[in-house]
Amino acid sequence: MTRQIKLGLSMRYLGYHAGAWRHPEVDPEGASKLSHFVRIARTAEAAKLDMVFLADGIGIRTKDEPPGALCRSAQTAEMEPLTLLSALSAVTSHIGLVATASTTYNEPFHIARKWASLDHLSGGRAGWNIVTSWSDAEARNFNRDEHLDYATRYERAAEFVEVVKGLWDSWDEDALVNDKQTGIFFDPAKLHALNHVGKHFKVKGPLSVKRTPQGRPILVQAGASDQGIDIAAESADVVYSVSQDMEQGRAYYAKLKGRLARHGRSPDELLIMPGITHFIGATRQEAQDKYEKLNALVDPILGLSYLYGQMGDLSGYDVDGPVPEPNNPQVRSIAKGLLELAHRENLTIRQLYTTIAAGFGTRLVIGTPQDVVDDMEAWVEAGAADGFNLCPPYLPGGMDDFIQLALPELRRRGMFRTEYEGKTLRESLGLRKPRSRYEGKNSGAIK
Amino acid sequence: MTRQIKLGLSMRYLGYHAGAWRHPEVDPEGASKLSHFVRIARTAEAAKLDMVFLADGIGIRTKDEPPGALCRSAQTAEMEPLTLLSALSAVTSHIGLVATASTTYNEPFHIARKWASLDHLSGGRAGWNIVTSWSDAEARNFNRDEHLDYATRYERAAEFVEVVKGLWDSWDEDALVNDKQTGIFFDPAKLHALNHVGKHFKVKGPLSVKRTPQGRPILVQAGASDQGIDIAAESADVVYSVSQDMEQGRAYYAKLKGRLARHGRSPDELLIMPGITHFIGATRQEAQDKYEKLNALVDPILGLSYLYGQMGDLSGYDVDGPVPEPNNPQVRSIAKGLLELAHRENLTIRQLYTTIAAGFGTRLVIGTPQDVVDDMEAWVEAGAADGFNLCPPYLPGGMDDFIQLALPELRRRGMFRTEYEGKTLRESLGLRKPRSRYEGKNSGAIK
Repeated sequence: MTRQIKLGLSMRYLGYHAGAWRHPEVDPEGASKLSHFVRIARTAEAAKLDMVFLADGIGIRTKDEPPGALCRSAQTAEMEPLTLLSALSAVTSHIGLVATASTTYNEPFHIARKWASLDHLSGGRAGWNIVTSWSDAEARNFNRDEHLDYATRYERAAEFVEVVKGLWDSWDEDALVNDKQTGIFFDPAKLHALNHVGKHFKVKGPLSVKRTPQGRPILVQAGASDQGIDIAAESADVVYSVSQDMEQGRAYYAKLKGRLARHGRSPDELLIMPGITHFIGATRQEAQDKYEKLNALVDPILGLSYLYGQMGDLSGYDVDGPVPEPNNPQVRSIAKGLLELAHRENLTIRQLYTTIAAGFGTRLVIGTPQDVVDDMEAWVEAGAADGFNLCPPYLPGGMDDFIQLALPELRRRGMFRTEYEGKTLRESLGLRKPRSRYEGKNSGAIK
Repeated sequence: MTRQIKLGLSMRYLGYHAGAWRHPEVDPEGASKLSHFVRIARTAEAAKLDMVFLADGIGIRTKDEPPGALCRSAQTAEMEPLTLLSALSAVTSHIGLVATASTTYNEPFHIARKWASLDHLSGGRAGWNIVTSWSDAEARNFNRDEHLDYATRYERAAEFVEVVKGLWDSWDEDALVNDKQTGIFFDPAKLHALNHVGKHFKVKGPLSVKRTPQGRPILVQAGASDQGIDIAAESADVVYSVSQDMEQGRAYYAKLKGRLARHGRSPDELLIMPGITHFIGATRQEAQDKYEKLNALVDPILGLSYLYGQMGDLSGYDVDGPVPEPNNPQVRSIAKGLLELAHRENLTIRQLYTTIAAGFGTRLVIGTPQDVVDDMEAWVEAGAADGFNLCPPYLPGGMDDFIQLALPELRRRGMFRTEYEGKTLRESLGLRKPRSRYEGKNSGAIK
């Protein structure tokens, strides 16, 4: 029997397909409504999923959009992840709440404090997805003209995470004694100032939030680059990966799990959860029809915008004709991956942009419940996944399809829980509570 | 008949009295529990109060604390205001949610985005209390050794508020057309980039959150200095003032209301709500007993710490003896206000620190429901207040006393609502929705 898997649900915007907002069942303003997300989170919790997740960018990424494309995209107006997940903490009881925050345009004290607070509010269900910001559109909202170079971003990110983890250790678990008789509120030997002085940050501490129910929130990462993998191997509890095929997934899994020992960690201390966008039907034809129906809702002006950054303006060509060979050698070089894909699979322009518009980089799986669960089981058996980050094409319908059609089959094979194992996200994921850096030491206490 | 007043409830920590956490009815860990704040917010909402409020500092203010004092203070471990109020937005329906955020150690894009999000989550009940950060303890959590000088802080604050207001105008109210037939999600003529370039900030925009139910969140300020009053007169909807007596309150009220015309605003566009800490009993003796009972719960080590910054270490003196005259002329100068108070009212050391420990600068009112409402009515009649920011000595008990004992008397005099006037905080406060800076203009639209 295949071992149990973990399942997250990504719920940004109205789903991962660019046509989602035009789907007849989708509320196009859902991304600005609490009720939309309450419906999703409660359904996911009733299905015993491990966590809901919100990806994020700090601004509208207008770069490379040709005129007329941006106004056809629903990926423009939304709520902010931390406030939204905090609201959901009050109306859910078991499901994990993972929000993204950038290390590029934030300060570690704010992030440590806000996520510690979310961990208290939720009774131990907070997670932080650690990212760096790579777009000029974001840089321009934060006093810069261009985004930071790659090396600086990752160096800053690594130090940022160290500071945040340090601040989360400020209070020992038993620091608050609350002795009304003696008037002692906390034991001063159990409160610690971090006194961090580094290249990017100088942070004294201590944090003004007591130690959280999970010891510290779950750390999530999506590190695909070498520096990203290093941050993940050192600190992450969960990695959302983006492998496109099983062999690539297996190689990534082996590489990242192998890197853990360098940081004194064992392979089971980090869970790898590739993203998948599912189209599920009672028959393969029904699944394919669901897929095609959403594809037809992507206006070619919007669709061409996904090729614009690499291939330039293709609006003069027939979208149902072949992908043109660029004359400009520089464009040929930038668009190499897309051109190879188009040639290999003999795609039209419309089919080419659909490969992006249908999931924005997540792997697509189209089929019956049996097909979908076979695929998941194969990845787990091959050593390519500990679970999956579900990225439904539209919400809530795409999630409902998975829960109603695929989840019973996963359970029938003994691959997914029927009850939560505990109360915290850490307990659901089967991860140990971290030790404080001050455990067994007297150093650093507040005098 | 006195006109209707507005009422806010300040709910930081466990109340405004330093002895609150030792009160027999108080849960000393309440400040880290969602259930504690849900109880308070729902009770305040059932009583039709305008809003709940959280003051804030970004770190533990250890400065000037002598050894042994900090560990006797509950003002050390708490949750972060924005996450906490976001959680409360999901379990309340009418009460306003006002959270503090510093302009000194934040970026305007984050603040604009998060508060716009809270306004959507709550259906139009968000407020931002605008502050600057003045303590070295906070500076040291944000890469600095000392806090910014006063002038820089206020200059930055004024520009910060302008940027935030500008970002909140990014989307016209009717920008989202959501036309599933044509595929147009928003009207690009109704989305505006701010393109702000100033001394402290460069922010392009637009904001990635659509225009909020209140047009923009309510802006709150506590400006007592001249620069503070200017920011308030230009932008604030509500001011929390700290006047200690009615004459001072009347003068402040007249000065601030008089300043509004400079910014093209009328006096009724800004509400002034002085803070009060009430001790209420069926008789005056009962009220006084409640006050004394809490005072007795302030350990002298903690009490002396409130004098430490101005008067130095007084631990060698009898706390129930007279306040000693400092030999050092510099100390005499710094402690001038406290020394005058001690002489005028013939206070012991214990009585002197109690004036601080009992409300941290808010005005104390001790008496029967009749006394308390007489006092409020007198302030309103005198032109010193449009309402009050209630700062209960301990929570939830101090709030319950006000609601059960004083509120019926306020209502009997026709001074407070029996039902909410609408759904948003702006409607409760009787304030108009702001116009967008782009109304009637075509400039600034995204192409």
